[in-house]
Amino acid sequence: MLITDLKSLRVVVLGAGRVAAHLAPALVSAGHQVVGLWSRNPESGAALAARLPATAALAPHLTQLPPADVYLLTLPDAVVPDVLAAARFPAGALVAHTAGALPLSVFAPYKEQLRGGVFYPLQTFGPGRAIAWADVPLCLEATDAAALATLHRLAAALSTDVRELDSARRLQLHVAAVWVSNFPNHLLGIGRELLAGAGLPWELLHPLIRETVDKALAQPPFVAQTGPAVRHDAATLARHEAALAAQPRWQQLYQQLTASIQATAGLLPAAANNGSGSRL
Amino acid sequence: MLITDLKSLRVVVLGAGRVAAHLAPALVSAGHQVVGLWSRNPESGAALAARLPATAALAPHLTQLPPADVYLLTLPDAVVPDVLAAARFPAGALVAHTAGALPLSVFAPYKEQLRGGVFYPLQTFGPGRAIAWADVPLCLEATDAAALATLHRLAAALSTDVRELDSARRLQLHVAAVWVSNFPNHLLGIGRELLAGAGLPWELLHPLIRETVDKALAQPPFVAQTGPAVRHDAATLARHEAALAAQPRWQQLYQQLTASIQATAGLLPAAANNGSGSRL
Repeated sequence: MLITDLKSLRVVVLGAGRVAAHLAPALVSAGHQVVGLWSRNPESGAALAARLPATAALAPHLTQLPPADVYLLTLPDAVVPDVLAAARFPAGALVAHTAGALPLSVFAPYKEQLRGGVFYPLQTFGPGRAIAWADVPLCLEATDAAALATLHRLAAALSTDVRELDSARRLQLHVAAVWVSNFPNHLLGIGRELLAGAGLPWELLHPLIRETVDKALAQPPFVAQTGPAVRHDAATLARHEAALAAQPRWQQLYQQLTASIQATAGLLPAAANNGSGSRL
Repeated sequence: MLITDLKSLRVVVLGAGRVAAHLAPALVSAGHQVVGLWSRNPESGAALAARLPATAALAPHLTQLPPADVYLLTLPDAVVPDVLAAARFPAGALVAHTAGALPLSVFAPYKEQLRGGVFYPLQTFGPGRAIAWADVPLCLEATDAAALATLHRLAAALSTDVRELDSARRLQLHVAAVWVSNFPNHLLGIGRELLAGAGLPWELLHPLIRETVDKALAQPPFVAQTGPAVRHDAATLARHEAALAAQPRWQQLYQQLTASIQATAGLLPAAANNGSGSRL
């Protein structure tokens, strides 16, 4: 099939989880065509298909995928090798996964049959969240230059921040992303539970959370660190640990995070960790 | 002295750290008068005085404080008792501290001489940051109703979110604030260092950080938790730990945070911790 619009690519999406639920409609909005779907879970697959144009038909089996310019694997990392082994792609097909920590070499066993690629969107995809795709960094990698060019065409319609990144640096980026997203989310969850336990509204902490992030993006967080840990404020630390006595897991994590802050501050120039006078 | 403007109060600020550097100018902007300053560090005190109207003269000693409607202690928690013991306040003066974890009872030894209060601004005060005071929750407490009313007058000119909070709940709030501000800031710092180590720009993570926070404020973070920890994605966790091998402290903290996420998810309904399909 001749592609008349250079920007438009035919895409088959494998997987119907959160990434697919965000990415497939965004690809359609960006002018690409989703020409097929496959999901381990037929219900998720049908739900996603219902949100897409009729061209995005659900394939009954991995051996019956329609022809496409790109096969996008939006699957858990551990599932990707199984799907690669079970699927039947057209000869020379471009198959790209969307994972941060999965090396390009996952495609190596199939180098005679297909071209491999990575199309990693650096974002967290919560249910019901509208994603500003134009700002989402898309990190690309491929087994050959033509495949990379195709992934660039796929990405350019979606985001203004498209980068080529090899597997090693993508892994480093993915680790860093866990530190700035999954882990802070967990701590915010603990804060929310503690506030609820005190009968206080979550909204009370919102201005503090906003300013914390604005500050961290504007200046190096280690230098801007405040709070009882970096001040070595033993009395406050003791009061806080006592206040967490009913949640021994959180009390322990509080101590571990405090130790990490103090160890980090010990490595910085003295002037940088002077939190004197700060209330937090 | 008769106070002709009901909204305007005379304030003496003790301490010239970050809180004072933000709060004193904000009080002046809000229409109050700073009629005196005192600081353990004369240089910080002079620097703050230079940013305030001439009425805000630096007191040479704690026994030579000018008359005022409120004496605000913007001091490290551990210093407050020492300053209370050393200072000479006019009989019946209203002395308020600005600390989250310091109980009102810190004033109890002086109940014959002065009235005590708490004026706790729930915010993190980084150097060079412009604080949106109208949004900052101000948590008030006092030893008597008249003192509380005065603190309300002080606060009303500054913020739209003024609350009365007893010492026990203020401590709970302060602990929660550490979880959502100091601790996430530390994790953001680790993320920034890891990214720098990979030769990647910090800005690459900004859209992810923004969305992480927007999502956490919009829905309960524990329910919205994503990432390899909550997915029990052993292969990715192993890759990440290997990638942190050069930083054993961070590798250990990674394991501790992962364990905490998994323990929390184990306490939630099964449907809530299904992160399947998420890339983070």
